[in-house]
Order: sequence, then C-alpha cells, then structure tokens
Amino acid sequence: MADNTFHNSNSTSYLVLLDFFFCLLQNSPAIQENRVTTVQCLSGTGSLRVGAEFLARHYHQHTIYIPQPTWGNHTKVFTLAGLSVKPYCYYDPATRGLNFKGLLEDLGSAPSGAIVLLHACAHNPTGVDPTLQQWEQIRQLMRSKGLLPFFDSAYQGFASGSLDADAQSVRMFVADGGECLVAQSYAKNMGLYGERVGALSIVCRTADVASRVESQLKLVIRPMYSNPPIHGASIVATILKDRNMFQEWTMELKGMADRIISMRHQLFDALRARGTPGDWSHIIKQIGMFTFTGLNSEQVAFMTKEYHIYMTSDGRISMAGLSSKTVPHLTDAIHAAVTRAV
Amino acid sequence: MADNTFHNSNSTSYLVLLDFFFCLLQNSPAIQENRVTTVQCLSGTGSLRVGAEFLARHYHQHTIYIPQPTWGNHTKVFTLAGLSVKPYCYYDPATRGLNFKGLLEDLGSAPSGAIVLLHACAHNPTGVDPTLQQWEQIRQLMRSKGLLPFFDSAYQGFASGSLDADAQSVRMFVADGGECLVAQSYAKNMGLYGERVGALSIVCRTADVASRVESQLKLVIRPMYSNPPIHGASIVATILKDRNMFQEWTMELKGMADRIISMRHQLFDALRARGTPGDWSHIIKQIGMFTFTGLNSEQVAFMTKEYHIYMTSDGRISMAGLSSKTVPHLTDAIHAAVTRAV
Repeated sequence: MADNTFHNSNSTSYLVLLDFFFCLLQNSPAIQENRVTTVQCLSGTGSLRVGAEFLARHYHQHTIYIPQPTWGNHTKVFTLAGLSVKPYCYYDPATRGLNFKGLLEDLGSAPSGAIVLLHACAHNPTGVDPTLQQWEQIRQLMRSKGLLPFFDSAYQGFASGSLDADAQSVRMFVADGGECLVAQSYAKNMGLYGERVGALSIVCRTADVASRVESQLKLVIRPMYSNPPIHGASIVATILKDRNMFQEWTMELKGMADRIISMRHQLFDALRARGTPGDWSHIIKQIGMFTFTGLNSEQVAFMTKEYHIYMTSDGRISMAGLSSKTVPHLTDAIHAAVTRAV
Repeated sequence: MADNTFHNSNSTSYLVLLDFFFCLLQNSPAIQENRVTTVQCLSGTGSLRVGAEFLARHYHQHTIYIPQPTWGNHTKVFTLAGLSVKPYCYYDPATRGLNFKGLLEDLGSAPSGAIVLLHACAHNPTGVDPTLQQWEQIRQLMRSKGLLPFFDSAYQGFASGSLDADAQSVRMFVADGGECLVAQSYAKNMGLYGERVGALSIVCRTADVASRVESQLKLVIRPMYSNPPIHGASIVATILKDRNMFQEWTMELKGMADRIISMRHQLFDALRARGTPGDWSHIIKQIGMFTFTGLNSEQVAFMTKEYHIYMTSDGRISMAGLSSKTVPHLTDAIHAAVTRAV
C-alpha cells in the first residue's frame, strides 16, 4: 500500500499532506491562491498541539475559549502549549441541546482577537452541533469581533456519512476570506487511530504569510519530533489520490455513519417501548459517535456496578460500540438507573 | 509484517516497547527488578523531548550540559522543554579528537545534580568517542557528583557493527545501579527513519519510582500527541522477538557498519596517495556515519562551488553517502580546497 519512495526522507512527509486539506476544502480559492499552509501532524491531538504552540509563539492573543464541556484533553493541550484557557457556554443540560444564547453572549464578550476552539462537527462529548443558520450567526459574530477560529475536525464524514456535509462549518469560515486554523484527524474516518495521521492547516490572508507560517510551523515540529511518521499518511494519500479508492472509502464511511445513526434509533425506540421516564429524543438529535445521555454520575456508577456497562462518568456513550444485540441490555440498565429509588 | 492486533488500540503501543530496552541492556538486573520505565516515542528527537519535558516538570535540577559541539537540534529540544542548556568541552580541533581534560574539568565544576547529555556512541557531528577507560572515568566523576546521565543513542550497532559494543557506555552506567535516561532511535540501525520509531527509557532506583515515572511520562505524551504510531514499532518488535530475524538484522547491520568503515579507509588512503597536506588519520579514528573533516567553512564553500560537493558548513561528511566510485572526486575536491592559495 505505502509508496516506498516516502521512506527515509527528511521532508516529503510534509508534501503529501496538501491532499489532506483538499479533502476538507475542494477547489477553494484559499487553496488556489496558495493561502493555506498544511503540515502533517500526529492525528488530532498532535495537530492541536502544534497549532497551539505556534499561536503561543507568534499570535498576539494568548487566550483560547473552549466549549463547556469539551474533550477532556483540550485544556491540557492548550495550557501546556502556553495558552490561557477560558470556557464558553455550549451545552444546555435542561434541553440536552445547544445553549445558543449563552454561546453568543460569551463569544460576544470575549476580547478582540481571542482564539475560539470550535468542533467542526459531532461535538465531543455532547453530540450537539449548531445548525447551519447558527453557524452563520457564530461566523458573523466572530468575524465582526476579530476572533480567531481554531477548528477541531476529528469526525469528518463519520458524523453524517457525508464528507461535504461534515465540512460545512469549516468551509463557511474559509469562504469569507478570513484566517482560521483546522486540526484534522484521520483516526476515525479512515480507521487509522494507531498510525496517528492528521494535519494542521492554517488559512492565511496572503500566500506570503502562508509561506512564513509554514517555516515557523517546521520550527515547532523539528524540536518536538523532527518529522511525522510516513506509513499512515501514505495510506491516506494513496486513497485520496485514487478516484476508485476514494469512492470506495466514502461508501464505507457512509455505511459506518448510517449504522451509528440506526443504533441511535434502536436505542430511542427501545426506551420508548419500555416506557422509561424522560424525553430521550436527544439520542436521535445528537450527532456523531457519542451520545451524551444526560445520566448523572450516580446513575453511571449504578449501571457499571449492576449491569457491567462502562462509560465516562459524564454519561457519554460511544454509539459505535453498540449493536442490535446489546441495545436491550443497555435499555434495561438505563431503565433501572432512572427508575430506582435513591 | 505488522501485527494487525496492534491497530486501533489506545495503549498497546506502550507495551511492545519493553523489547526496545532489552536490546540495549539484555538480562540487566535493572530490567529484572522492574526499575526501568520505557515508553515508545517518535525516534530520537521525540524521545529526547519527552524526557526533557519530564525532567523540566519533575527533576530538581533544570540545567543540562551538552557536548561542544553537538547535534544542532539538541539545544532547541532542551530549551523548548524548559531546561537551561550549558556546554561542556568535548572536541579538540587541534587533535581532531577528544578534549578529555577539558571534559573532566567542565563536568567536575558542574553543580551537583545537573543533567549531562552523553552520546552513547558515534558522537554527532564529530565521530569522536571516549575510550572505555575514559567512559569509566566519566562515570566515576558523574556518580561522585550526583550528575544525571541522559544518553542519546541514535546509532547503536551502526557505529562498530556490534549492538553490544555500541551499548557499552550505557550499560556501564546502568550496571552501577544509579539512575539514567536513554533516548533510543531505530531510524538508522533499522532503516526506519520515516516511521519515527524510538523509545525513552528511564532507569530508576526502585520499581515503585519506575511505575510513578511511567504515569508521569504518559501525562507528558497525552497532551502532545496522545499515542505514538504503531507501524514502525510493530516492525521493530517483530524483528526483536524473532531469533532468526534478529540474527539477520545484526548481520545486515554489520554489513552497513563495515561498508562505512571501509569508506573511511578508502578516503584516507586516497588522500595519502595524493599527498594531500595534513594528518588525515582522524578519518579512520572517528566512529559512526559522520566524519568531522576539520575543513573550515571557506573550504566547504569552495568545494560546494567548484566540485558540487555538499556538506554542513562545519565540515561534517556523511560517510554513508560515499561509495568507491565517488571517493576520487571527493579526494580531488579536498586536495584542491586545502592546497589552493587563499
């Protein structure tokens, strides 16, 4: 699979990576105008860290706003890189949906130039995404205040089954000609978790800035691990370059996403059929591999102890780990957890 | 080649890596007493960076002494990790050999507990290594002053052709029961540069300390790139576990090392036959893939301009890039560079 010419080279690993950003943003003027710098990094985490180290060294604002809640590693990645982390309103426990008003208020009162972490799709851990209309409002607010978007794109194609649909938020921000950062992971959508394939792309205002940004990114990478690993990246590059393989991949991706969506419906239907108290419609409204159930930590502990069902204590379930066979057992456990006397 | 069970796993990549340190230190009491923590890292650079970040966070001394000269990336790796870098005497331009007196003086006046970077073998860029007797004196001095050894082992087996011979310096320090760090790369000795295979091992005084060190190392790695890549590591692990493959590898390694040593002799003989002024015996005395020619930056620039021979401006030649066919051209160029009127 891997092209051997990639091996033992000091620099080509940077080159194959333009394919990465093409996937996110085909035929964009930003690409055609050479305003995008892409460097291969170690999956999502590594891309976030390199981007954060770059911003800490060269960007005038050192505060990054992250959604509340967010992936547990985000705070550590940004703090260790030298940024100062602040939360912005995101999830509303009452509706198990987006607290859009709170989000607009918090970003509206952020200082000009501040960095804002945005989950491109399939927000982790809540599975709650803004609608396209809401994304547009967020974009307008952020651009009007000069806030810098830093997208974490860990699930492109894995959320809706469509690479294009899952990239809409990012493309909206790139289309307006402004700056943004995008950390991309191929861990989930290509099943390459162990190979650490990812990329950091920085969209700049001019080709000249993009070229200077690239040399600075290499100065972040060189004393961290010199070069990224080649094997996984050459698999990704091979698939992205070949029309037939690309087609096959997008179909498999849709199969994966559809299966997860079908699991959401099976679990929702089973809870309704069982008459489990509560409104479980968030299970089918949420997006991506996770469902943020709304179960509290006591209920989670009860399910672990009595039903041997393991999830994070914030009640996040990986829908990818569920099957038609295990839905009844999970339904029993949830039913028992929410109906038992405390 | 790669075992597919390694894929898509969050944690096994740490497990395969004990093999790495076995290679450096077979049957050591430190291994048997579980006093060694090994984590897979991204080749030499990544191992040095993770070790340096760990020391900056948890070790009481933040000064690291590095040989003068040393690999160009060392200063940046350690500085960015938060350590303070100081040089110690190493190379003597007059003899093109070791300045042993200067080395002992500098380490002798280092503050107690300071970290000392040591090249395990085939010092880069000089190719000058201490003798075993000198290593023993260095060890005694460092242990008496409580200096902490941090080995950079980038060329094990590639220098002399013997894995054991090239590990003697490290084994000497491990055998005395004291602490040390070892950054290992499999880039050159397994030809896996592009796969970024390496390991950081920390030899501790007790198994309890080793286990606590391991959990702290994971806290350095998790917000940097989460996990190391699996492909290259599974190739290394497969070879180290299989007696026949291991044998085959060591023979190929000896073949590579012997070819480099033979190039040294061919170049030395050609310069003597040509009557090129100067004592060129350092070419056959130096060790590893690099020869530190002693040519100055003007001579290097002249050779680049007139003979299209490219090397670093400090006069370092990669002997691995030389062949019987190219020795005459290089000899012509060196001869012209050192005999021309300036």
